[in-house]
Amino acid sequence: MTSDLERLFEHLRFPSISTDSRHAGDVQANAQWLKAQFVEMGLEAELHETPGHPVVLARNEKVEGLPTVLIYGHYDVQPVDPLELWDSPPFEPEVRDGKIWGRGGADNKGQHFVHMLGAEKTIQEEGKLPLNVIFLIEGEEEIGSPNLVPFLKEHLDELACDIIAVSDTGMVAPGVPTLGYGLRGITCLDVTVKGPAGDLHSGVYGGCVANPASAAARLIASLHHDDGSIAVEGFYDDVIALEDWEREMWAQVPGTSNEEILASIGSPEPFGEPGYTMAEQLWARPTVEVNGMGGGYQGEGSKTVIPAEAMFKLSCRLVPGQDPDKVQAQVEEHLRKMLPRGVTIEIDKGHSGKAYHNDPHSRYGKAAQAALKRSFGREPVLIREGGSIPIIQDMKEILGADSLMLGLALPGCQIHAPNENYAVENFERGIEMSRALLKELSKI
Amino acid sequence: MTSDLERLFEHLRFPSISTDSRHAGDVQANAQWLKAQFVEMGLEAELHETPGHPVVLARNEKVEGLPTVLIYGHYDVQPVDPLELWDSPPFEPEVRDGKIWGRGGADNKGQHFVHMLGAEKTIQEEGKLPLNVIFLIEGEEEIGSPNLVPFLKEHLDELACDIIAVSDTGMVAPGVPTLGYGLRGITCLDVTVKGPAGDLHSGVYGGCVANPASAAARLIASLHHDDGSIAVEGFYDDVIALEDWEREMWAQVPGTSNEEILASIGSPEPFGEPGYTMAEQLWARPTVEVNGMGGGYQGEGSKTVIPAEAMFKLSCRLVPGQDPDKVQAQVEEHLRKMLPRGVTIEIDKGHSGKAYHNDPHSRYGKAAQAALKRSFGREPVLIREGGSIPIIQDMKEILGADSLMLGLALPGCQIHAPNENYAVENFERGIEMSRALLKELSKI
Repeated sequence: MTSDLERLFEHLRFPSISTDSRHAGDVQANAQWLKAQFVEMGLEAELHETPGHPVVLARNEKVEGLPTVLIYGHYDVQPVDPLELWDSPPFEPEVRDGKIWGRGGADNKGQHFVHMLGAEKTIQEEGKLPLNVIFLIEGEEEIGSPNLVPFLKEHLDELACDIIAVSDTGMVAPGVPTLGYGLRGITCLDVTVKGPAGDLHSGVYGGCVANPASAAARLIASLHHDDGSIAVEGFYDDVIALEDWEREMWAQVPGTSNEEILASIGSPEPFGEPGYTMAEQLWARPTVEVNGMGGGYQGEGSKTVIPAEAMFKLSCRLVPGQDPDKVQAQVEEHLRKMLPRGVTIEIDKGHSGKAYHNDPHSRYGKAAQAALKRSFGREPVLIREGGSIPIIQDMKEILGADSLMLGLALPGCQIHAPNENYAVENFERGIEMSRALLKELSKI
Repeated sequence: MTSDLERLFEHLRFPSISTDSRHAGDVQANAQWLKAQFVEMGLEAELHETPGHPVVLARNEKVEGLPTVLIYGHYDVQPVDPLELWDSPPFEPEVRDGKIWGRGGADNKGQHFVHMLGAEKTIQEEGKLPLNVIFLIEGEEEIGSPNLVPFLKEHLDELACDIIAVSDTGMVAPGVPTLGYGLRGITCLDVTVKGPAGDLHSGVYGGCVANPASAAARLIASLHHDDGSIAVEGFYDDVIALEDWEREMWAQVPGTSNEEILASIGSPEPFGEPGYTMAEQLWARPTVEVNGMGGGYQGEGSKTVIPAEAMFKLSCRLVPGQDPDKVQAQVEEHLRKMLPRGVTIEIDKGHSGKAYHNDPHSRYGKAAQAALKRSFGREPVLIREGGSIPIIQDMKEILGADSLMLGLALPGCQIHAPNENYAVENFERGIEMSRALLKELSKI
């Protein structure tokens, strides 16, 4: 085993589960270990305590006139339950079949550690880094980064940077370098539909009173046309259309054809807004999805009740151009307009976040493409993702810098699940990618 | 306290909760007590053991040529939780404000006991009963009478009768004698809508895959027109229309105007099939109701998931003329026809029972009306009920006899709930009603 891998294994052995207070000591110890690694590399490093887990900050000596890259990562990990489903213990990493098995391998220790090793090797070979580098490795990503926005605001000057590099996303297929340049935003609404004062017997009262479960179903049904497109007035108005180069690029991205996506999720056929491939729908079109609905008796057998109320939870994924508050208001107005007779409605507005995207053909984007090409030996694919990473948009708003998403996790890497894994090849090529990235960015 | 009331209190003190095996001994003791009461009255009485709780059967000596009435009741009661909501202990009956408070007062001990006292007083005053009388008091009504149909079939000859009298329903208002002559039937369907192989992240996959919760909602919404009428093809085809005398009668029934029903259930406005009063909808029109629906995350906060499946439970209340199997098939066909793309459906057919009605102007109905009028001092109202009492239809099919539903429970009597109560006046007038009924029926 190489010394690089041995050092990653040290990192992976910390059970740094941020959501579990019994592991607070492990999280702290992991942060201390990281700081020591940075010091050993020759960087200035500090541990910043927060109301939660510490942020590890490290940097080389700042040289005016050179560009600054901030490398973001997180050293906390997800819980490991159910433990019995792991083929090897989650915090005793090992290599099998070309993969590193263990919690945090892909999400995110194995991904940010390549950047630490890339910087270390650069310093070892060249005596110093060719640009200003700031490492920001937080310990609360898996619990929603509750203390990171205040931390960014309190350390604005210290964190000033031109570009951000993040390896915390996916590669579309083995050997296919992937640059992510967009994420969808989100806005959520919780809806309660209320009818009679209490549950009613559906024999004694059925037929003369509005059933809140039926009314909720009618509201949900009203959100989409039969073809799957969204029926909320004005919903698509502000959506920035896909560009031709994106559609051409995405049509060639391995692993993302309709057939491949359907096979991976076990769905019988595509669905939704006509005129788009599934990848286009996922990466560039907005949604309204029911994440949960309920009302009345859901247990075994029957209970002949008309429920006094029913509920549903909606989340809308947003794309560039859409304003979360405006969309939330459009959906609310739609629901109030479509409300059936005989019931009332309560709407709780949930959390929101804007969509994010940058230009992968900017000089920073080109630097990232060049680094990916040099380390993986082929042109990278340029994709967006369907999910949301709020911290990317937060850093854009607070630090004013875009994020290059240099994902190294492969399909099947099992993040957040038992048997998390990370390809040894991606670890090794990732170190090369990081070295190349520092070089490319330094030329800007 | 009268001796009649004292004896009812003895009956009410047995905690004969049929669903709770810890009370099996109490149920048995109550049955033994009942048998002793019948013997004391001068009737032949037997306790018939079943796989569950015993049936108490009592009768006078059968005289050929006289009509036979079977009086049905049940001595088991509902559980009493939550105990802390009772103003007085459920099995320590007492009189307050003209009402008897305690579990079983209205449902059903207080109602069948008037018939026992009516027969007893008739025997005491006239030396014998004027017709053949069979008492059938079961101990499993509150758990769905699982052993009663086999019992009826095994004792066909013994139970042969011309008419059945049941006091186990409601009076529409104090002082308003009520003859029930119809009940709705029921048929149930459980529906599961299946989509992707597992739950999906609604960010990563939202927009390209059919959401089973949305699909379930669309199916539910498809069952009704906007005006609340049922959209299932052929659903109303076999419904026997209301007769003019029924609409006239029901328009005058106290406590059942739209305003009174809305106030009692706390609903803002009437709903459902146009052209009918709420009472007409409840008593004479069929329904499709969602008794429960669910899918995805229903807890606090948000979980951005596309659920792998969603479910809903339907029950249809049926009216005379409708065949439960045919209606079940119509609803199934409708759901399969309306199924949105991208999901599959599984339908479990649940239990069914036909609607029941008889002619309240038959000679038996007229006898019941005369008895009610004599004991309560005014013309009875003739109503149907919205709920289902399967045993009434079972007795019709097995014994070939109709049931006169002579309800004595008032609105607000809290059956199945804390503070169950039964008007002392109805207890006293009920005894008179029973005596009058025996006399009227003997003249047929």
